[in-house]
Amino acid sequence: MGKQLLGPQTLVYPMPALLVGANVGSKPNFMTIAWAGIACGDPPMLSVAIRHVRHTLKGIRENMTFSANIPSASQAKEADYCGIVSGSKADKVEACHFNVFYGKLGNAPLIEQCPVNLECSVVHILDLGSHSLVIGRIEETHISEECLTDGKPDVVKINPLTYVTSPAARYQGLGEVIGQAFRIGREMA
Amino acid sequence: MGKQLLGPQTLVYPMPALLVGANVGSKPNFMTIAWAGIACGDPPMLSVAIRHVRHTLKGIRENMTFSANIPSASQAKEADYCGIVSGSKADKVEACHFNVFYGKLGNAPLIEQCPVNLECSVVHILDLGSHSLVIGRIEETHISEECLTDGKPDVVKINPLTYVTSPAARYQGLGEVIGQAFRIGREMA
Repeated sequence: MGKQLLGPQTLVYPMPALLVGANVGSKPNFMTIAWAGIACGDPPMLSVAIRHVRHTLKGIRENMTFSANIPSASQAKEADYCGIVSGSKADKVEACHFNVFYGKLGNAPLIEQCPVNLECSVVHILDLGSHSLVIGRIEETHISEECLTDGKPDVVKINPLTYVTSPAARYQGLGEVIGQAFRIGREMA
Repeated sequence: MGKQLLGPQTLVYPMPALLVGANVGSKPNFMTIAWAGIACGDPPMLSVAIRHVRHTLKGIRENMTFSANIPSASQAKEADYCGIVSGSKADKVEACHFNVFYGKLGNAPLIEQCPVNLECSVVHILDLGSHSLVIGRIEETHISEECLTDGKPDVVKINPLTYVTSPAARYQGLGEVIGQAFRIGREMA
């Protein structure tokens, strides 16, 4: 059948590169997470997988809130930096010149420069092994005004960053439009 | 600050378009899921969010196994079809001309034409509201031989499909390479 086995691998394409934020000892910190996905529609929920030792996870447990900030392609360097460096050793907000603001929850730090910001309150933390799966209810969505068209999110203006997992291990933009969802499959129905 | 509030939204970019498979009454069925993400590294796990009524969820509960098949950009039409139509009303395998095979688990159906196939055994099913979050341990990874370079997955050959959530609601390919992960942020460290 022309298939080869690779053993158990975390091989999903594409992945996001979310800047997940929490206040740790009341100081905002952000880490980059590609292992994330929407977990529920009603109420809207997001899951993020975080290694137990991570500094951001301490803040999430402290406040039971977190944020997910979606970087644009122009923020690849900052997103990469926040995935490499620990908040226990560096002030990432200062290094990245992030303008931090707070929303509805009051203690989930948001990055003004990211086009989309989700505020989440924790509903579950599952210990799955090397990682805790943190499931948060999305309580509010902030979007940069310049990324709206007719009051709705415009993906071309948002220009999101995509993470391509290893061995490529790189960031890419969105490519060629292939077709309209909920439409191109209809001719087969 | 130039931000606008949108209320709680499932607004993450990018999302995958996974063809999630299960045997329902021993007949293979597939549905398309964009709400998915890696949930743990060791052991490797994947989470997928599925509405309670979905036919595929019945099969997952029946066998406590499922598959996640990663379509390439050339399979956009099939991926869209499998998201629109219910397996209770149509034989999607026949309609899409999928060649189904089985691997290590024996009852998680895999699609030969998809470049990457993950076999998963269920470890948790969380009822979160409108959706069940199914968390599976990735037991084996299959990859099409023509998508390997030096024995490793080659994302250019895989050419994965990306789902861009509504209001755009469309499929796109991967775009411009922006930079190398774990490298471009180092100059800020």
